[in-house]
Amino acid sequence: MPPETLHFPPSQAALLAPYLPSTTSTTSSSRPHLTLTFATSLDSALSLRPGTQTALSGPESKAMTHYLRSRHSAILIGAGTAVADDPGLNCRIAGCASQPRPVVLDPSARWQVGDGSKVVRLAREGAGLAPFVVVRAGVEVSRERRAVLERVGGRYIPAPCEEGGGFAWRDVLAVLEREGLDSVMVEGGGAVINSLLAGANLRLVDSVIVTIAPTWLGKGGVVVSPHRPGGEDGTEPAARLVGVKWCPLGEDVVLCGRPA
Amino acid sequence: MPPETLHFPPSQAALLAPYLPSTTSTTSSSRPHLTLTFATSLDSALSLRPGTQTALSGPESKAMTHYLRSRHSAILIGAGTAVADDPGLNCRIAGCASQPRPVVLDPSARWQVGDGSKVVRLAREGAGLAPFVVVRAGVEVSRERRAVLERVGGRYIPAPCEEGGGFAWRDVLAVLEREGLDSVMVEGGGAVINSLLAGANLRLVDSVIVTIAPTWLGKGGVVVSPHRPGGEDGTEPAARLVGVKWCPLGEDVVLCGRPA
Repeated sequence: MPPETLHFPPSQAALLAPYLPSTTSTTSSSRPHLTLTFATSLDSALSLRPGTQTALSGPESKAMTHYLRSRHSAILIGAGTAVADDPGLNCRIAGCASQPRPVVLDPSARWQVGDGSKVVRLAREGAGLAPFVVVRAGVEVSRERRAVLERVGGRYIPAPCEEGGGFAWRDVLAVLEREGLDSVMVEGGGAVINSLLAGANLRLVDSVIVTIAPTWLGKGGVVVSPHRPGGEDGTEPAARLVGVKWCPLGEDVVLCGRPA
Repeated sequence: MPPETLHFPPSQAALLAPYLPSTTSTTSSSRPHLTLTFATSLDSALSLRPGTQTALSGPESKAMTHYLRSRHSAILIGAGTAVADDPGLNCRIAGCASQPRPVVLDPSARWQVGDGSKVVRLAREGAGLAPFVVVRAGVEVSRERRAVLERVGGRYIPAPCEEGGGFAWRDVLAVLEREGLDSVMVEGGGAVINSLLAGANLRLVDSVIVTIAPTWLGKGGVVVSPHRPGGEDGTEPAARLVGVKWCPLGEDVVLCGRPA
């Protein structure tokens, strides 16, 4: 049975419009539009524990996610999420004009992508694009794993790493730009989100769309809570949003805003 | 200069009505109506660190808090909040018919309440009621400190403690009931809130009203995140709300709901 096609009401879509990449702009920005989007519990948890997927938000939020995917040229996740969730990363919204490109940040190439991976299967079936996996320049990837991606139109893309072994966001955005991807929706997981919400990285974020479910997952979850300036003793909040809109959606609420 | 009188729009008040103690009910419940209310950041923090007060929500939320106080016969906080914030705990909403009774849970009598404490000052000025401080039965409180409260109409009330040194919520509610306080708004702090949101205590909560500000305070804050069943390895969320309503209020959102 083909997976269900999703519908997102135009009235809801209109509320999100100011936070999405322009469809008509003729000016070319120096870097891709970056939308950061994720769903949390009231206690800011993405999931009950590392390496698991937790159903949090309702069906309306799922339709919204697929609508948002239809409005970006790339969807970006970290390797942890790829490993834990085996995500499809395609767009199932009715009338989706072009599928977004899945991008996985995987410096050490630990995601064991194979022919059975959902994203590869969807690409083979023509229901989505094959992933670009950004790895540390020089990291070893077997010929077989390269072939898995290349058979469906994906590939490994090397990028420089920082001393800690992670990528600098400017380098990641440069990769996207070189690939002609002018808008990216960053979906998770925790490490990726907290990194983008902290310090100077926040300046690379154009808009934030957070879905909040009326649930407390409780202590022990994977939480969104960025490092604040000055560390845990810092007296300034880590990040603030301006131009804020709260849109109730089913049992959840969707917060749209821009970094202050 | 007398402190500002606050106004809360009737249209907003109407949205909260289903979650508040009834003003017309003739049936007497076996225990006081308990409304749990607090304001957090997006990362569920009440403040930047223990022992400090952090301005989070906007002026509209402040007016809402005072409106809510006008609709309860008691306002309850923990000793940590009394010590850290020196709160007034009165109601400054225009037309407030009767002031709520401040109740401080202070098993070890560590709150050094004095004539200069804000809540005592307000009681002396007739701008609020004097506090009832619930202490562990048998704990020593000096004659001077008792006198501070008694001069303005407050007092120390002994209650039994559990093995860990804290009160059982049923015992606290029994104290309120004996004092003729038939509705209580619990305002904080972190320990009090997390205790009420966990396990069987949640059954004593009639409604929850949470204000969320579009800010991440960042790692190191005092967070609302209750213990979940089975501890940090538990696979069930700690608490869920039903009958949910999200009300945008200024830059913030107000979530109303009832424990599932």
